[in-house]
Amino acid sequence: MNDTRERVVVTEVGLRDGLQSIARIMSTDDKRRWIDAAYAAGVRHMEVASFVPAKLLPQMADAAAVVAHARSYDDLSVTALVPNLKGAQHALDAGVERIVAPISVSVAHSVANVRKTPAEMIDAFAAMRELIDRATSAGGRRVELIAGLSTVFGCTLQGAVPYADIAAIARAAVQAGADVIALGDTTGEATPRQVGKVIELVRDVAGDTLRSLHFHDTRGLGLANTLVALQHGIREFDASLAGLGGCPHAPGATGNVNTEDLVFMLDSMGYDTGIDITRLLASRAVLAQALPGEPLYGYLARAGLPKQFAHGQPAVRESAEPSESLRYSHSSAPQVPQ
Amino acid sequence: MNDTRERVVVTEVGLRDGLQSIARIMSTDDKRRWIDAAYAAGVRHMEVASFVPAKLLPQMADAAAVVAHARSYDDLSVTALVPNLKGAQHALDAGVERIVAPISVSVAHSVANVRKTPAEMIDAFAAMRELIDRATSAGGRRVELIAGLSTVFGCTLQGAVPYADIAAIARAAVQAGADVIALGDTTGEATPRQVGKVIELVRDVAGDTLRSLHFHDTRGLGLANTLVALQHGIREFDASLAGLGGCPHAPGATGNVNTEDLVFMLDSMGYDTGIDITRLLASRAVLAQALPGEPLYGYLARAGLPKQFAHGQPAVRESAEPSESLRYSHSSAPQVPQ
Repeated sequence: MNDTRERVVVTEVGLRDGLQSIARIMSTDDKRRWIDAAYAAGVRHMEVASFVPAKLLPQMADAAAVVAHARSYDDLSVTALVPNLKGAQHALDAGVERIVAPISVSVAHSVANVRKTPAEMIDAFAAMRELIDRATSAGGRRVELIAGLSTVFGCTLQGAVPYADIAAIARAAVQAGADVIALGDTTGEATPRQVGKVIELVRDVAGDTLRSLHFHDTRGLGLANTLVALQHGIREFDASLAGLGGCPHAPGATGNVNTEDLVFMLDSMGYDTGIDITRLLASRAVLAQALPGEPLYGYLARAGLPKQFAHGQPAVRESAEPSESLRYSHSSAPQVPQ
Repeated sequence: MNDTRERVVVTEVGLRDGLQSIARIMSTDDKRRWIDAAYAAGVRHMEVASFVPAKLLPQMADAAAVVAHARSYDDLSVTALVPNLKGAQHALDAGVERIVAPISVSVAHSVANVRKTPAEMIDAFAAMRELIDRATSAGGRRVELIAGLSTVFGCTLQGAVPYADIAAIARAAVQAGADVIALGDTTGEATPRQVGKVIELVRDVAGDTLRSLHFHDTRGLGLANTLVALQHGIREFDASLAGLGGCPHAPGATGNVNTEDLVFMLDSMGYDTGIDITRLLASRAVLAQALPGEPLYGYLARAGLPKQFAHGQPAVRESAEPSESLRYSHSSAPQVPQ
């Protein structure tokens, strides 16, 4: 292992974003098994549930029980998605370490998703901040509050999102007390140059509070977009095992960036994710067993690791001289112009 | 249209690399239809055949007829792959404008693929150079000779390829008279940081002769690798419609980078490919009809163009002020910290 490798945090969000985007319901026991397998592979950041009414999202009815299981691992950072104050209270009661509130920069999407305008959602976010601060003052431990800006790179309802709207919402979220700004390509419309521009834009108003990116791989650009974000200094990414997700009402939709493929890319580039790619690939078995027939995506799972790939090693061989076979061939082939 | 956009050449190689990698044989008429549809979509660079013995690659038995059809378009640049001198003669006779010779940097792959060591292949390449130059001297038009360096980013037989081997072969190819050096990720093992390093390495020995990159999308990194190559100044890429390819003997293998997805990424970044993405997507119908049951890949074909996407326009809306709806909401929400 090379201890000088730079750390990149990969947060497994399949238990939340993946499962809430498919029609089927995974049992609580299977969710526990998934958490166990991910933890065994080295995953230390998971978004495991959303605290929403069970009648709206029956997939998340067991949120408290799932959080409780995840919390049994001392060094696992446990995140939940929360759309309102009531959900935030439930998440705090359950013992999460991080709360993500979805704040859409598209009015149309915001109203459709959380029945609030972006500004109303900022109000709710400020109220969550107060709730968390009161809990901390009362002796609770510090809980991080994340503004999950959604539809940042485009909206299926609204189309393109003006830069000024993104900046306005990011600024309002920081002023309302966000510990972290996360940018979400909710509908999988982000493209590489745009990603760089939006990161610069949001960093101008949010500074280092901008920390995390959430890409979907709807148009095959998930990893290219991740690469641009890395080049712009982002070191935290959401991803979903087997690219679980899509949308029960849209057959063509695809889920989050695939965790295994993301970890492979990061590994190959010399970043330290702390995740064992072989064990991570093996953990797909939990999904295959728990959700028979559900499509599991992933390039690496299909193609396997390249022969040359050794965990933590660069995928190249550097040497001063060509291989002996090439040297021999060249010296025996004087007809080749030198 | 914005005339200041920088040009990127996308060469459709599905007729060669795609078709030779599947077990089935496409009829000559269907190949003609594919060429027509690609041309109608704006594709002006196609690698349409390889000149090899028909008993080795029956898919390419009609190479001369296919080249003849492609040549009927005056402004279409027609490329053929050629592994030896005899093939080069046939390609010249057929009237191609560009000849690609595959020169593997892996001895094991080279011997398996063309029954020659890399050095022997360099000899053959030098002989092709002489053949082309003689034809030009005799009044033939200028034909470009491309050294298609293969397995540059790894080899399924050999594993990692030493940098010194890549440099040695690239230098020998230039000295043997290559007009263009193209780098091929034959087995789909390239990773982003490696791509940058290898481009720098080869440019050190080949200068501007290094012009073209050929990626496969085996591990989902085709577009991320393309992005790195763009950042390193490469402006020519091979791709295959519907990602046609794979390998008849390896179910998990995947084909070249998908042309539609590549063009979408380039478009979104403001590059000018000259290709109409909507017509390109429509041209998949030729494959669906000619190769029923053959898997056709592609993110864009599944998800469609984003609502915000307008051909030739950036996928963002820049404005000085937030949208009115956001302004109104903010002014009516004084409880939000400002």
